[in-house]
Amino acid sequence: MDNRAIGVFDSGLGGLTAVRQLHRIMPDEHIIYFGDTGRVPYGTRSRQTIINYTRQDTAFLCSHDIKAIVVACGTVSSVALGTVKTENTIPMVGVVKPSCYTAMKLTKSNRVGIIGTKGTIHSGSYEAMLHTLDPSVHTIARACPLFVPLVENGRFSPDDPVVQLVVEEYLAEIRDFGVDTLIMGCTHYPLLRAAIRAYLGDEVALIDPGAEAADYVRTFLEPAEPGNGRTEYFVSDDPDSFDTYAEMFLGEPAGVHANLVEDIASYGKERG
Amino acid sequence: MDNRAIGVFDSGLGGLTAVRQLHRIMPDEHIIYFGDTGRVPYGTRSRQTIINYTRQDTAFLCSHDIKAIVVACGTVSSVALGTVKTENTIPMVGVVKPSCYTAMKLTKSNRVGIIGTKGTIHSGSYEAMLHTLDPSVHTIARACPLFVPLVENGRFSPDDPVVQLVVEEYLAEIRDFGVDTLIMGCTHYPLLRAAIRAYLGDEVALIDPGAEAADYVRTFLEPAEPGNGRTEYFVSDDPDSFDTYAEMFLGEPAGVHANLVEDIASYGKERG
Repeated sequence: MDNRAIGVFDSGLGGLTAVRQLHRIMPDEHIIYFGDTGRVPYGTRSRQTIINYTRQDTAFLCSHDIKAIVVACGTVSSVALGTVKTENTIPMVGVVKPSCYTAMKLTKSNRVGIIGTKGTIHSGSYEAMLHTLDPSVHTIARACPLFVPLVENGRFSPDDPVVQLVVEEYLAEIRDFGVDTLIMGCTHYPLLRAAIRAYLGDEVALIDPGAEAADYVRTFLEPAEPGNGRTEYFVSDDPDSFDTYAEMFLGEPAGVHANLVEDIASYGKERG
Repeated sequence: MDNRAIGVFDSGLGGLTAVRQLHRIMPDEHIIYFGDTGRVPYGTRSRQTIINYTRQDTAFLCSHDIKAIVVACGTVSSVALGTVKTENTIPMVGVVKPSCYTAMKLTKSNRVGIIGTKGTIHSGSYEAMLHTLDPSVHTIARACPLFVPLVENGRFSPDDPVVQLVVEEYLAEIRDFGVDTLIMGCTHYPLLRAAIRAYLGDEVALIDPGAEAADYVRTFLEPAEPGNGRTEYFVSDDPDSFDTYAEMFLGEPAGVHANLVEDIASYGKERG
């Protein structure tokens, strides 16, 4: 048994979709969550800045007693994980590989769609992994830059006309391409699941990257003892606002009381 | 004559609407612009974080030889300027006061609308200033949280159906209130001028806060010598992307080559 915590981080709230799944399948784990709400979003920033922020987020989590890190952010997993992993000894799990494994298990038509932030789609991370798993797969990828601001503003209802219009704009080509599986490649996007489902129809499988990363972690991690379970939340800005919105990401009455990290940019300075 | 530079800053690109006006009316000035593109947007962050970021932005500009600072950001002007002004000896001009002066000069019906970020509208800064200038003024204010992400994604055409839908949603109450003057209280919003005009009609005066701040600066600043004019640009992330988008804010072929500021969070540490 290993009672050390599992560290989880994201640019903001999205990574809570991974915590939600960890709560379901590993209720005895101590989880330490960090949301970089003072610098969200990551998906529109440059590669170097995403790497710098990832180093600091990782250093913050490593200042606690943890046994692994779940990178619950599609952008970081796509753009920075390869670099930052080599600089740390702690096991780090991103969302790309687990999502792609599940996509290849589910697809029957061998036609898989990917949506994500600009940074994620530009990196080609999901396509590369899918093609590694099966060179014959047909993929289509589309950046959806307005999805994160919509979700961060609480706009994800399938009845919201702005949401409907933006979903249609971003997903029209993907629907026409005839995918039977869609990787919602940013941890914010599962909140738009109902709106995406309304547009694509029930026959398209929708893959939640945070949940997939959580499932994958369980396959190799030495578990904690029964009764060890608790979750601590840390953010770089506005804990009150985080507490308010966290429930909608966690999908449960959460009683979240996040702690403020005052100077996230000062962590990991020694790595420069 | 005073050839020292004018410092201008914003969370990102929006403040270039002030630079555009400075170029027009004070072509001999040396301008140093800082856009905090590594941490944009400010409008959804907490008061304390906006103050911290403003201290760092101000300290960066003060590391150059400047004679004044234009705070070309509605959120900073509303939330942080009062605090940070008292900590510095350099003259600092925000967008709120100049915009309100012009609004009260232009309105005939005494009914003035204000739009801005969540932080700006929550602060009540524009209403307070308008009521100081004329206690009988009738005001209506509305936060427009999707406007900045739309503009930052290049979405501001009056023919864009998403823009049309969001403009209608945010401005319906303001139109019904019967304003004859609207303060576009965030320096990003003037890019949406055509879409706002299409919805509100030609009879509503639209006030550009960056341009108003630039006009106000001219009234008190010791000018530079002829031939001194040049502009230097600094950003905290992705200079290439800044260069690409800058022209649409400046409204001129700009030939912008921004410089990267690697660690904006390290400026002004001594003020803690």
